[in-house]
Amino acid sequence: MSTLTINDERFLSDLYHLRTFGADGIGVIRPSLSTPDVAARHWLRTRMEEAGLEAQIDRVGTVFGRSPRPGPALLLGSHTDTQPKAGWLDGAFGVMAALEVARTLREQPETAGLAVDVASWIDEEGSFLGFLGSRSFCGLQDLSLIDTATGRDGRLLVAALAEAGLAGRPRVQMEDGRYAGYLEAHIEQGPFLEADGNRIGVVTRIVGIRTMLIRFTGIQNHAGTTPMPMRKDAGRALVEFVNRIHAEFPKIAGERTVWTAGRIELDPGAASVIPGAAELTLQFRDPESEMMNRLQERVFELAAEADGDIGVEAIMEPGTVEPVAMDEDLLEQVAAAAESHAPNNWVRMPSGAGHDAQVLALRMPSAMLFVPSIGGISHDFAEDTADEDLVLGCQVLATAVESILKAAPAAPPSRPA
Amino acid sequence: MSTLTINDERFLSDLYHLRTFGADGIGVIRPSLSTPDVAARHWLRTRMEEAGLEAQIDRVGTVFGRSPRPGPALLLGSHTDTQPKAGWLDGAFGVMAALEVARTLREQPETAGLAVDVASWIDEEGSFLGFLGSRSFCGLQDLSLIDTATGRDGRLLVAALAEAGLAGRPRVQMEDGRYAGYLEAHIEQGPFLEADGNRIGVVTRIVGIRTMLIRFTGIQNHAGTTPMPMRKDAGRALVEFVNRIHAEFPKIAGERTVWTAGRIELDPGAASVIPGAAELTLQFRDPESEMMNRLQERVFELAAEADGDIGVEAIMEPGTVEPVAMDEDLLEQVAAAAESHAPNNWVRMPSGAGHDAQVLALRMPSAMLFVPSIGGISHDFAEDTADEDLVLGCQVLATAVESILKAAPAAPPSRPA
Repeated sequence: MSTLTINDERFLSDLYHLRTFGADGIGVIRPSLSTPDVAARHWLRTRMEEAGLEAQIDRVGTVFGRSPRPGPALLLGSHTDTQPKAGWLDGAFGVMAALEVARTLREQPETAGLAVDVASWIDEEGSFLGFLGSRSFCGLQDLSLIDTATGRDGRLLVAALAEAGLAGRPRVQMEDGRYAGYLEAHIEQGPFLEADGNRIGVVTRIVGIRTMLIRFTGIQNHAGTTPMPMRKDAGRALVEFVNRIHAEFPKIAGERTVWTAGRIELDPGAASVIPGAAELTLQFRDPESEMMNRLQERVFELAAEADGDIGVEAIMEPGTVEPVAMDEDLLEQVAAAAESHAPNNWVRMPSGAGHDAQVLALRMPSAMLFVPSIGGISHDFAEDTADEDLVLGCQVLATAVESILKAAPAAPPSRPA
Repeated sequence: MSTLTINDERFLSDLYHLRTFGADGIGVIRPSLSTPDVAARHWLRTRMEEAGLEAQIDRVGTVFGRSPRPGPALLLGSHTDTQPKAGWLDGAFGVMAALEVARTLREQPETAGLAVDVASWIDEEGSFLGFLGSRSFCGLQDLSLIDTATGRDGRLLVAALAEAGLAGRPRVQMEDGRYAGYLEAHIEQGPFLEADGNRIGVVTRIVGIRTMLIRFTGIQNHAGTTPMPMRKDAGRALVEFVNRIHAEFPKIAGERTVWTAGRIELDPGAASVIPGAAELTLQFRDPESEMMNRLQERVFELAAEADGDIGVEAIMEPGTVEPVAMDEDLLEQVAAAAESHAPNNWVRMPSGAGHDAQVLALRMPSAMLFVPSIGGISHDFAEDTADEDLVLGCQVLATAVESILKAAPAAPPSRPA
């Protein structure tokens, strides 16, 4: 096995530096194209240049560092944008691990000729359009959506891109024939590794994600003068609908199915006003497309049943991601690297979270590795991972990259967009 | 009966002018101390001066026009602040009717000696502190709350008052011995007058209002990686709680009881995040204090039952108003005026909405009259009343004021604060 060793201190130092962009206490607020996100992209681009990559921020905001070496190349990446109130490692760990691996390979004579490209895909978290960067790179983004997408902060995506000085830049797209595959390191964001005392997860499948918007239309009125029987309270209808979902989904859900009513908006949302309109965002995930179809169908049925005095409309949100299997060959190489650095302390497991690897897997062989999340906490300021586990994850990634590239055929596989 | 006649055109012209402050289509957005609200207050103060009143905007923002005549005086008023998305008549009608009555009395020799003071009480709608203006006038406002109150827009009340140039002004307070009583004209904001073909409502009682904040504390986490049984979803707990309220309240509620879950906030409110915290504002109203006590007790019980894995805390909001009866003598005078202008087309009725008259009634005899709301709609852009009904309401108010003041004893009653 390889003797390639990453520079722990440099890796952690850069990772902790990235944490300062948008820092809020121990957490991070760095959604796509926010001021700290744009600053982090410029910093990252400079770090990529220093690592000998030809680096740019592209038309949609992805930071892409291309190795000057010819292929077969491995593409490594993740994302540096965050949820509205986020932890410091979701995405950030994978990007900084990718950069460290590229630097490490370049510094050691026996691996300096290997080609590793590094990406921070923009908007994995969907502040504007989920997986925008990886979809754009893979030629899978509906470009017309880019012109109309609006962010959580109310800005048009195109306006936010122009504000960031990215309008008119070239769009980075996949070069056919260059890549042996895509690898992404990530925190688990769930409880399973820690609970079983494992330090590395080798991802077998990634769950699919579907998001539905359910709109309720009633009649806004005075909360004091409108008798209960005369009310058309859109908020009450929404609450009843969410309860129906929680009652009905368990009847059809699989072992790994999860669903979340994460966003509720009442209009106007005041104590003295009967809500005239209300909106619910319902998201569900499962490793199997068929199960997702059944859940989606049930939402449409429940919406149709509820549609009456209060108008109920269920709409599929853009950004649906189908469940996808990781590449068998790549994941076995990752497993071998895990076994060499953490013997008997790693496990094959599905990913409950969506990742850019899900998009890349549609175009090239892809694999992922996880490191444990303390307490299984993620999408929260408290998200954290032990430094030793971060370093171990980066090291396993480096070893896997080396072994994959050394074994890669000259003309690697690629799939049509 | 009196031959006192209001100036219909002048009254409607002023009322329609007030509508332009914060106009949004046919609706109005003019919450307390917003830019259009402050502009409307300055305009109103000027109109009061032109009507011969000694007018000022006081320390909390109430516009107060004092007649230079000695008492016994009648105090007339309502409010010009609005809900976040409001109709044009809620409050506005009563203030402009009050001003028109003051002008009409002054212009006609046989009534020019009568004293009518006019008020636009600030923040009846509770953008910062419900009934702030009337409570402050009556000496019933907890002044310490003024220093800490925060508006729906996130501003401190004191900062908003300072921005409006009101810091350090005198606070207008009730003069003992001056007032024969308080009269307020208002739109009904409900469906009853229109449904029965009545044009004037003479208010007998005003319902009480209690508002409770219910806070749910769970654990924020990733919506994909956290298995359903491990979740502590504060949003789900909130939704279940609201359903319990809707199931339990009908078992104890009276005929006139209403309750509204008008505000729901999930934190952080994103599709991919299990809400770690959630807040509900629950308001309920009833004409009887005992019923309100039972409802409040039930909320505390349900909150205690639900408190467990998810923390549930129920808190009484400030600004509670007890149900209150209108003054028998005054309301009979209003009834006589209604009968003279709309024979057989008026009715005695309780008010389902809260009004400043509820506060004033704690310090002096008070009464109210209603005009119909088209379709019973209020707290909505579509709120409206026929011009003829607005004019009729103003005319009935004028006649009632004249007859009350002509019969008023020299030393009118007043009650301790």
